[in-house]
Amino acid sequence: MADETRRLVLDAVARGFSHRFKADDSFVTDVDLAVERHLRTRIAAHFPGHGVIGEELDATGTGAELRWTIDPIDGTHSFRFGVPFYGTLLALLHGDVPVLGVIDMPGLALRVAGARGLGARANGAALRLADADGPVEREIVATGDRAQFEKAGKLSSYERLAREHPVVRTYSDCLGHALALQGRVGAMVDFGLHLWDVAATEAIAREAGARFVCLERRGATGADARHDVVFGKPAVVDRLLRILT
Amino acid sequence: MADETRRLVLDAVARGFSHRFKADDSFVTDVDLAVERHLRTRIAAHFPGHGVIGEELDATGTGAELRWTIDPIDGTHSFRFGVPFYGTLLALLHGDVPVLGVIDMPGLALRVAGARGLGARANGAALRLADADGPVEREIVATGDRAQFEKAGKLSSYERLAREHPVVRTYSDCLGHALALQGRVGAMVDFGLHLWDVAATEAIAREAGARFVCLERRGATGADARHDVVFGKPAVVDRLLRILT
Repeated sequence: MADETRRLVLDAVARGFSHRFKADDSFVTDVDLAVERHLRTRIAAHFPGHGVIGEELDATGTGAELRWTIDPIDGTHSFRFGVPFYGTLLALLHGDVPVLGVIDMPGLALRVAGARGLGARANGAALRLADADGPVEREIVATGDRAQFEKAGKLSSYERLAREHPVVRTYSDCLGHALALQGRVGAMVDFGLHLWDVAATEAIAREAGARFVCLERRGATGADARHDVVFGKPAVVDRLLRILT
Repeated sequence: MADETRRLVLDAVARGFSHRFKADDSFVTDVDLAVERHLRTRIAAHFPGHGVIGEELDATGTGAELRWTIDPIDGTHSFRFGVPFYGTLLALLHGDVPVLGVIDMPGLALRVAGARGLGARANGAALRLADADGPVEREIVATGDRAQFEKAGKLSSYERLAREHPVVRTYSDCLGHALALQGRVGAMVDFGLHLWDVAATEAIAREAGARFVCLERRGATGADARHDVVFGKPAVVDRLLRILT
């Protein structure tokens, strides 16, 4: 399915696409809708009993034991402007537990994926995180956009992190997730996420040996909740938790 | 020459490389030295009368009318940790004016280059920047690392920018430069740069139709000076200058 959506996305990039603003003032493009529709059609054909929670369309099969989450284009702001740091996120929940995750980044030709008991992979190569092998404060820490922290009412956390860790970079959205799951950045701090932003990462992190911590979940369960998370190399996550809490 | 250094860098990434800390507490790797030595050998063979100013070795031919600047691995911090946002920077100065620039990013398979009268290219395709085609405040603005602003004594500029522009991301080093020269981010604000960090971008910017503004140059000319620069789409640069000054 990720092969198919990657082709769909790259064709749209080559052809050009239109965008508009959503009610929350974020961008949506016709590609977001086309990718989510494609994945829903494929899931319905292969797994008719499964539920689906997606960013752009209404949830289906909300009572199902197995439910998919879809973020068709994570990083729409990057996507709209041609910055290659966007991706398609797909996860499978068993109850409320993510058991399979795929982060596919067409603009970087990068796919990071993992499933319970099957391990994690980056572009097909087995992924097993080594902990920090040098001074933890040298590691690069990724964050989401400052506006995410502001919306979550946690701008002070963002500013404390920027003051207390030497190298903090806004590698927003799936870029930071993919880099942290590969151990390239030491960890990521990402606040105010929807379930479809975070479920794939949680599933992959467990299989890759990354530490994944949800600091807070606000709101109802399911599509309305917002998650503040930290994940990456265990020693770096520990340091960040000390700074943040 | 950039084809050759790209191979050299990618071979080192595949093989592994060692790193150590420099006096200014930044990383240097054996790849930095190998790339700079290779470029100096090639320049000396082809252009024996030209001078060279490089990050890792002493300047030569300081009185020459034509001088090359070399940053063998710009973004060494990223390079050391496997984040693919590093690159080799090469520029040619006529007097003090950059007339040719190459930004080669092996980890992204991206090369942005330009020369006076020959235009600018990204991976071979002609590059001619369109100005912002929508609300300027929607454009993504790239910055260097917070520590660069702190060292330059301009942390307040960094913080004002983060407060007043909606989407500011630390796309440090040549990543932000390459994205701004392609018009993918609207502009970049990068402070405390050496000549070899900025000469290639200035040469390419002029040919690509980007606006390039040096807000301040501190210290002596040549290798010791530090440059605070803003460059990108004209309308975005104008907005940033209003915020910064």
